[in-house]
Amino acid sequence: MTTMDDVSRPSRVAGPDEAISQEELRLAARNHGIPLEALRYDVTPAGLHYLLIHYDIPDLDPAAHTLTVDGAVGRPLRLGLAELRERPRVTHRVTLECAGNGRALLHPRPVSQPWLVEAVGNAEWTGTPLAPLLREAGIAPDAVDVVFTGADHGVERGVEQDYQRALPLDDALRDEVLLAYAMNGAPLLPQHGAPLRLIVPGWYGMAHVKWLRTISVLTREFDGYQNAVAYRLRRDADDPGVPVTRIEPRALVRPPGFPDFMSRARVLRPGPCTVDGRAWSGHGPVVAVEVTTDGGASWSPATLDPPAGGGWSWRRWRYEWTPQPGRYALGARATDASGRTQPVEQPWNRGGFANNLVQRVDVLVVAE
Amino acid sequence: MTTMDDVSRPSRVAGPDEAISQEELRLAARNHGIPLEALRYDVTPAGLHYLLIHYDIPDLDPAAHTLTVDGAVGRPLRLGLAELRERPRVTHRVTLECAGNGRALLHPRPVSQPWLVEAVGNAEWTGTPLAPLLREAGIAPDAVDVVFTGADHGVERGVEQDYQRALPLDDALRDEVLLAYAMNGAPLLPQHGAPLRLIVPGWYGMAHVKWLRTISVLTREFDGYQNAVAYRLRRDADDPGVPVTRIEPRALVRPPGFPDFMSRARVLRPGPCTVDGRAWSGHGPVVAVEVTTDGGASWSPATLDPPAGGGWSWRRWRYEWTPQPGRYALGARATDASGRTQPVEQPWNRGGFANNLVQRVDVLVVAE
Repeated sequence: MTTMDDVSRPSRVAGPDEAISQEELRLAARNHGIPLEALRYDVTPAGLHYLLIHYDIPDLDPAAHTLTVDGAVGRPLRLGLAELRERPRVTHRVTLECAGNGRALLHPRPVSQPWLVEAVGNAEWTGTPLAPLLREAGIAPDAVDVVFTGADHGVERGVEQDYQRALPLDDALRDEVLLAYAMNGAPLLPQHGAPLRLIVPGWYGMAHVKWLRTISVLTREFDGYQNAVAYRLRRDADDPGVPVTRIEPRALVRPPGFPDFMSRARVLRPGPCTVDGRAWSGHGPVVAVEVTTDGGASWSPATLDPPAGGGWSWRRWRYEWTPQPGRYALGARATDASGRTQPVEQPWNRGGFANNLVQRVDVLVVAE
Repeated sequence: MTTMDDVSRPSRVAGPDEAISQEELRLAARNHGIPLEALRYDVTPAGLHYLLIHYDIPDLDPAAHTLTVDGAVGRPLRLGLAELRERPRVTHRVTLECAGNGRALLHPRPVSQPWLVEAVGNAEWTGTPLAPLLREAGIAPDAVDVVFTGADHGVERGVEQDYQRALPLDDALRDEVLLAYAMNGAPLLPQHGAPLRLIVPGWYGMAHVKWLRTISVLTREFDGYQNAVAYRLRRDADDPGVPVTRIEPRALVRPPGFPDFMSRARVLRPGPCTVDGRAWSGHGPVVAVEVTTDGGASWSPATLDPPAGGGWSWRRWRYEWTPQPGRYALGARATDASGRTQPVEQPWNRGGFANNLVQRVDVLVVAE
């Protein structure tokens, strides 16, 4: 007897001393984060943006690809890429972060893609706004959710599925939500959702459905796996939890000096050094960044660069530092206009989502 | 007292039960392999090619970048990118594989970048041949090695260094060795060595020096870290070992069916299925690929597609398979024209290099 449950098992939390498994390593070898030195670029170049692919990258023909809009609408639509490209075109610079970023730093560790802090990127997405298209289709007055279905197919915790995520109707109708066909001025790469994906500025990555082929309007709340089971903040397996939605504030330090190959610890010579990095939040503009060089014992304000790239793009910060020889633990803490900031205690939940605990960058300042 | 040795420790082999450490995970999160479904592309798209970056990606200005040719030459040269682009231009399609591919599957496991099987890619590299440039510089009659220095700087096992690798003069003078400034028809991406890198078809990745800025001809054997210490096949720490050079033969299976998110095990429906993948070797053309569906107990010949892309590019193979419901372990084994093939026992060495043991892809064929 062989069933899908033989290869697709329930979610779990690692034991207290359980190290990274080969399954987690396999995910880490395929999905990848931004190399932290690439925080130097305001717009992340192709191939350096983080990637999380639930199943396989599908093999889609842009010329044959269509987008269907159906469900609780007056006039179902079916559009090819050429028709989408003829519609009004906008570009938004958007910071995208995986909801699982920080997961592998949690104690105990939820077993899934084992991100440390690097599941982020900032890109320019070009496409056509979603709301006018939904309105053309004629949204039913009792519509509740809008479901986006991608072409990637797999099984997850025993549930065979195409990747599907819903947005509440009001979120789907936000002006800045895009059907994107280009990234950083070039056609979408296969791994970023070619030929068409959703962009939902301010939300964690799971909402930005890649390889998009169907949009369905529902008159009830969507109960599919990725909304009802996977992306929820739960205390334990029995907790129904609350949905993962917008990105919590976070600042990352661009590690100064040069690295040791194996430990990635940093080596720096004494003297003046500009420490910098990027900060973002999906709840509002970043209004303050503080820096620590002693692992969080004390904090100093960083200077924020003027906002660049609009309200959905990360913001550069900098901090002038003149260290003496010794060992340091650098970190940065962002606060946004909503008053949210980064915690000093880990925000543990069973899925390992939205862990915006302050990063730690070990730095050795050596005189020789 | 703080010294570089505090953060940069000697090489080691993991204990018998030692799982993946957070240091290894950090390397896995930044460096990445090819997602195995991307074996469908003969030329690997940008962002899907494997990446191994020893230190940080340097921040180089192409307009200001120069290449110096010096050492035991009659006429030292200094060239900008524009001058290199005016020289004869060639494009080679080249399969590049990291020498450490397969490391994390070894028992015991050498502790370094923890690759499974995915550290490979196949790209079109455009540039100018190296040999004419060296000849213009006037190679000394007693020249032995040619050293290539990149702009990436770090510390490794206690040795602070710019990344440097030497080739024996005869290898440096091979027609197909390139100074490359473009990949897949576009300017090099930062992570692939922009604005200039070396391409040494047939050799493992460590020879293809990225961010290239100096070429020095030596009248002695180069004794720098990456040649004399790092990339050597050693039985133990006291063994002087032999250099890692050309790529051992390997075939990879493009996993059929669809994946389970967490285990990456494959699910397939019964019925006819074309299993395919790619095979390559740096020692000679691939002349045969065999396939197993029972974890190596039995083997059947695969069909090789006609060679495409020249002698340094991987070759597609395919195998028609009609499975019944059940569990299978797929793998493929390449043999090249030199008679080399893939081992059934792990080729263990202390650095974990050139492990071309046959891949294992778990497949569940389910009727429902």
